[in-house]
Amino acid sequence: MTLARHIVLQSRPTGQPGQDNFRLEEFDLPEANEGDVTVRSLYLSLDPYMRGRMSDAKSYAAPVPVGGAMEGEAISEVVKSRHNNFAPGDIVRGRTGWSSGAVINGDQLRRVETHGAPITTSLGSLGMPGFTAWSGLKFIGKPTQGETVAVAAASGPVGSMVGQLARLTGARAVGIAGGAEKCAFVKGELGFDAVVDHRSDSFASDLQAACPDGIDVYFENVGGHVWNGVLPLLNQFARVPVCGLVAHYNGAGSADTDQLPATMSTILRRSLLVRGFIQTEFAADHFDEFLDEVGPRVASGKIRYREDIVNGLENAPEAFVGMLSGKNFGKLIVKIAE
Amino acid sequence: MTLARHIVLQSRPTGQPGQDNFRLEEFDLPEANEGDVTVRSLYLSLDPYMRGRMSDAKSYAAPVPVGGAMEGEAISEVVKSRHNNFAPGDIVRGRTGWSSGAVINGDQLRRVETHGAPITTSLGSLGMPGFTAWSGLKFIGKPTQGETVAVAAASGPVGSMVGQLARLTGARAVGIAGGAEKCAFVKGELGFDAVVDHRSDSFASDLQAACPDGIDVYFENVGGHVWNGVLPLLNQFARVPVCGLVAHYNGAGSADTDQLPATMSTILRRSLLVRGFIQTEFAADHFDEFLDEVGPRVASGKIRYREDIVNGLENAPEAFVGMLSGKNFGKLIVKIAE
Repeated sequence: MTLARHIVLQSRPTGQPGQDNFRLEEFDLPEANEGDVTVRSLYLSLDPYMRGRMSDAKSYAAPVPVGGAMEGEAISEVVKSRHNNFAPGDIVRGRTGWSSGAVINGDQLRRVETHGAPITTSLGSLGMPGFTAWSGLKFIGKPTQGETVAVAAASGPVGSMVGQLARLTGARAVGIAGGAEKCAFVKGELGFDAVVDHRSDSFASDLQAACPDGIDVYFENVGGHVWNGVLPLLNQFARVPVCGLVAHYNGAGSADTDQLPATMSTILRRSLLVRGFIQTEFAADHFDEFLDEVGPRVASGKIRYREDIVNGLENAPEAFVGMLSGKNFGKLIVKIAE
Repeated sequence: MTLARHIVLQSRPTGQPGQDNFRLEEFDLPEANEGDVTVRSLYLSLDPYMRGRMSDAKSYAAPVPVGGAMEGEAISEVVKSRHNNFAPGDIVRGRTGWSSGAVINGDQLRRVETHGAPITTSLGSLGMPGFTAWSGLKFIGKPTQGETVAVAAASGPVGSMVGQLARLTGARAVGIAGGAEKCAFVKGELGFDAVVDHRSDSFASDLQAACPDGIDVYFENVGGHVWNGVLPLLNQFARVPVCGLVAHYNGAGSADTDQLPATMSTILRRSLLVRGFIQTEFAADHFDEFLDEVGPRVASGKIRYREDIVNGLENAPEAFVGMLSGKNFGKLIVKIAE
């Protein structure tokens, strides 16, 4: 038996989660069966969708049971393999959870391929967040030359890719971010055409000034008051891929009055397309295409990214809780081992 | 000069319009220029979208000015023609307004073609409402064999077509209507698979019982509390064409609490497609296809419809006001002349 450590869901949060909703535990790795691979975790990805897994509300995925290990994707090194595709030393990616190690069927692992970029990018710009941006634009947003694409959480792993990919299609990218430091990064480092601080009292008018021709694609990943600023600016036939609603995950994001009639009537009057999606819908058929197209650009530095790397599995809960209130800056990753 | 009568917008309504927002006036028909056609109105179509034209809120179409003639589509007989395509006695359809007659450029008229059905169907099942149903299903809802299609105002001109067209594709049609008489018509006459009365206290559970496999296409034409009943039943990848929001037109339809987060999170979790549309988006390219496909079925009685015909232009305001609160039963038409 090999001892490992993982983080379990101690209790379900009501509203904003706290560190006390989590617990670090030791556990014995199970026996490896034929086809299984034993891995040692290196980097764990922390993502907003995990908030949903902590609740037992009906969702697209089953919740984590109380007392069960938190789910998540990590990069690992293969230690032992009973699967033909993998050998010790291989670097792989898979849903091995908030854990220092795992035994998992090799069919559920994917070899890390980053075209020469650091392996952590396979959790960010070349992983699920990057693919969310790419597939949401390619299959739903479909920006064209000269159109305006707006995205919130623009310094984050999805938003930063949305703006940079939009610019590659000839569209104008307008980022929305919280605070001067993130805004400076979005415009200065990521090269967005404009950026607006959603914490400003003049957010709505700032956004309008930044979008003189309105908005043709709004990539929705936050919800809340940002949406209220975007809504009046959406052009006829605008497209709204919805991949996340961070502002709502903790039960916040509600207004004092009913905001639904304004949204529905705008959808009607402007012939809007609003489409929710989870990247898994497109991953099986298109992930390799994404990697071939975007990988070399990330490796060469043409597409930029920022990572926020926290050391130690035991610090994952604090980092996750902070992320939900916007404290991280860049793709949040927990380094578990060298 | 020829004297005619029309109904003008006397004042803009706040909330539910009343008859005092309208005024009947006499006016002189203008001189006909080269290309113009002089028509005598026979049947005027009254439709919910006209409520929007009475307000000066930003919309997809300019509002009717105060003191201006109410806009609308009518069937007319050509009296004089200075256009090569038309001759006296022709029966035509065009946006000639709430008026007993008009002078209009012939390029803006369409010869009435109903494949042998009564000419009034060109304002209903074979006109704009029928085309709204057909194009919303064909280009947005895309129901397939065995799926469930739900529609509100199911006894109305759009809803009745949505359900019958859905059944022709092999889908199951669930109608929502107000009151026992309309419900009986939807199931008994129109042949929907199930019908639910939205005025019942048990509406939400009745709808759930009527949709044991959930809802794959919800054709949204009313909004308000019906939407709240539909939302929890929408299946993954469900499609929601939005062509009208009658419940909101008078400023009603709002709840005491913010309903937007529930809608947005369902859009996300179930990967919903919500798409507003106005039939004009598709009419230029597809109206003839629609007429060829649906016309013979309406003429033969395979597709059924119901008309609510009111006599006399002077009674149009009362009929229109009643329609907005669901008093009409079937496609509302005003007979202006024999």
